[in-house]
Amino acid sequence: MNDRLAEAREARDRYRGVRHRDEWGLEFSRIVAFSDGVFAIAITLLALTIEVPKDLPASKSVGDVLWDRRGDLIAYGVSFAVLGRLWLTHHRFFSSLERFDGALMGLNILYLAWVAMVPVTSDVLGDFGEQSTGVILYAANLLGLTTTFAISIYYSYRARLFKPQVAEMERRFAGPSTTVIAAVFALSIPVAIVSPEVATAMWLSIFLVGWRAGDIFARLRYR
Amino acid sequence: MNDRLAEAREARDRYRGVRHRDEWGLEFSRIVAFSDGVFAIAITLLALTIEVPKDLPASKSVGDVLWDRRGDLIAYGVSFAVLGRLWLTHHRFFSSLERFDGALMGLNILYLAWVAMVPVTSDVLGDFGEQSTGVILYAANLLGLTTTFAISIYYSYRARLFKPQVAEMERRFAGPSTTVIAAVFALSIPVAIVSPEVATAMWLSIFLVGWRAGDIFARLRYR
Amino acid sequence: MNDRLAEAREARDRYRGVRHRDEWGLEFSRIVAFSDGVFAIAITLLALTIEVPKDLPASKSVGDVLWDRRGDLIAYGVSFAVLGRLWLTHHRFFSSLERFDGALMGLNILYLAWVAMVPVTSDVLGDFGEQSTGVILYAANLLGLTTTFAISIYYSYRARLFKPQVAEMERRFAGPSTTVIAAVFALSIPVAIVSPEVATAMWLSIFLVGWRAGDIFARLRYR
Amino acid sequence: MNDRLAEAREARDRYRGVRHRDEWGLEFSRIVAFSDGVFAIAITLLALTIEVPKDLPASKSVGDVLWDRRGDLIAYGVSFAVLGRLWLTHHRFFSSLERFDGALMGLNILYLAWVAMVPVTSDVLGDFGEQSTGVILYAANLLGLTTTFAISIYYSYRARLFKPQVAEMERRFAGPSTTVIAAVFALSIPVAIVSPEVATAMWLSIFLVGWRAGDIFARLRYR
Repeated sequence: MNDRLAEAREARDRYRGVRHRDEWGLEFSRIVAFSDGVFAIAITLLALTIEVPKDLPASKSVGDVLWDRRGDLIAYGVSFAVLGRLWLTHHRFFSSLERFDGALMGLNILYLAWVAMVPVTSDVLGDFGEQSTGVILYAANLLGLTTTFAISIYYSYRARLFKPQVAEMERRFAGPSTTVIAAVFALSIPVAIVSPEVATAMWLSIFLVGWRAGDIFARLRYR
Repeated sequence: MNDRLAEAREARDRYRGVRHRDEWGLEFSRIVAFSDGVFAIAITLLALTIEVPKDLPASKSVGDVLWDRRGDLIAYGVSFAVLGRLWLTHHRFFSSLERFDGALMGLNILYLAWVAMVPVTSDVLGDFGEQSTGVILYAANLLGLTTTFAISIYYSYRARLFKPQVAEMERRFAGPSTTVIAAVFALSIPVAIVSPEVATAMWLSIFLVGWRAGDIFARLRYR
Repeated sequence: MNDRLAEAREARDRYRGVRHRDEWGLEFSRIVAFSDGVFAIAITLLALTIEVPKDLPASKSVGDVLWDRRGDLIAYGVSFAVLGRLWLTHHRFFSSLERFDGALMGLNILYLAWVAMVPVTSDVLGDFGEQSTGVILYAANLLGLTTTFAISIYYSYRARLFKPQVAEMERRFAGPSTTVIAAVFALSIPVAIVSPEVATAMWLSIFLVGWRAGDIFARLRYR
Repeated sequence: MNDRLAEAREARDRYRGVRHRDEWGLEFSRIVAFSDGVFAIAITLLALTIEVPKDLPASKSVGDVLWDRRGDLIAYGVSFAVLGRLWLTHHRFFSSLERFDGALMGLNILYLAWVAMVPVTSDVLGDFGEQSTGVILYAANLLGLTTTFAISIYYSYRARLFKPQVAEMERRFAGPSTTVIAAVFALSIPVAIVSPEVATAMWLSIFLVGWRAGDIFARLRYR
């Protein structure tokens, strides 16, 4: 009977082995399309967090209406820029990959769970952006997101999933700069307790120095 | 006149016959893309079940806010993992298929109807997860879903829709393990009447032993 | 100066001419993908019309909860089946096309506008399905939809947009059967004033005799 | 140490250089798919702005119900047509591009942010279309959108991103006609303060003379 069990096991392993290559090879484009779908939906749902007024008294000017919604509008602008940028980075990451494995797949699903949550925390930020709590919840969401992404990069390097010609560069530039961004979000949490405004300014600094982060990091490292 | 009717019928059959091959052959990738679209939208809509608080008193800490939403957050995590995993399984199933027919198409639409319902039952689970009713509704949704999937696998085997080299393995591993998962959801329904917590724990066990289910099943069968 | 105008016009016409072929040729797959996207989103949004109860008293059994939502659940099932079927038909139509023009493009956009409206009228049907008004609004939506589709088929035939080998069949089978379905929805509107139940039963008959409609029509025609 | 820094910098530049071509070359189709996704979602969400009545008294005829929602229905029709047309134009633009750069990418994200906002301003238009404020907010959204698009066209021309054979035509026809449309939306804002109806009529004129705008412009220019 043990023979039959061994045979069954071998069949299953063969089954899994064959699929493995097939699945992650051929299905690569589908995983990317699925991730793109989640990004596209999340980014479009952001707009729904802008609350439509229940009534519009004639006495109220357009300026007043926009001013009432300034929190929602700023949160929309920030989150659209954030998700737009994250999508670009996610794309660059995937175009550096040569193959995929189950663990990276799991990390990607976890990453997308953070992405899909952005419209919700963005809604909170729009409504309560001048309070510590609102700012902290948003920062926590993006901290989880960037941390998952940084882990994905380092894991892919270790598991030799990158294309050989870019692997070293991913580890040396993409990894550190993602870690720096995660650190800024982590730091902004205690800062938000004292001042939500300063915490928000810290995020904006990521955009302003953003693409230079890897450069700065490389410089500091080799000095 | 009967001649013209026969001719018309023949033309129609030829029309259907030609299309048949064409449609399910060339259009295969579109069916997958459509299914992926439904999955991507359903998984992103999950986040909208996390209720945004109406007001945030300064006295309330971030921990308190998260604690208030713990039901929603747990339901989000569970459902994201469930849909993520189902999507992977759905993909593996489709990559094993060689062709398609109308009945499998119908089963796939029915399957997607269960998928699209997950954000709704997940919302119920988030709000009433400590009550039997909430847990039962969620289990019923996933029971319908997994049962439809198991039927799809066995049907595809019978109708010889699988690629020859994987057909036997689909029947021996994918079929039984899907049936086991369906059985766990079915069993969790009476259990939930007594204890919603135990029922929820039963689902988690699917994840923990999950990918080993086929293995265990194969072992039991050959002992 | 007139020379320069003529030259500019010619340049523009050349520009449009070149694009024409290019655009509808190469971009064909994008138009299909866009339509599929609208279908996938509309079909997934259907689930959101199932209202989540505000509270779940322990005294209420699962059966009671489902019974309270029976209107929503039936409407969900019906609309999912309707949109699923329409998507299939839309696909078959597009796979019969050889090329595209601006007018068909406009008809397709109009068609999608009716598709996107289904979740809304389905919501009305779920809440007020036992009243004439709810049933009529749903029927009107599907009448608009099927009429637009029938016009698209006949227009495509006239403008020679179909692949030659299927053009005649499209006109003889797809055209008439779509017209029959449109007629059933049109007829169900006056019927719904007297009895919403009979009107709903008329729709179901489309599904039951559905794919035979073209056959029946052909038979009547050649007798 | 400076050697190692120079080396690191060179590696990074090589890394960026290689990616640049790769990324915008191969990833082109993904950028289009992502944009199409945002359009498809936004256009489908439009329907959700049609408010479902809370109750349907038997005394209310279907005509009354539709009349009550006339604002929502008109806004839905207008916005569906607007987004449908914008999608076509966006497509034509992308099919004229030979390559992409970071700035155009940023402009495209900004453009999509305006697109995603249309369901929100359309909702406002549906509820408050007879008031200046509602009309102005909608016009402002479309002004932002068309201005971003016009900038994208002129930028792409300057940065030599168009295919050589269509570049000149893009600059001479697509650029001016987009600018004309942006100007109509800009003009409709002061007009809306006096009369919301006239402002709305101005938008409709874009559709009626729409595709002739480039022609008219060319004629005026060469006279």
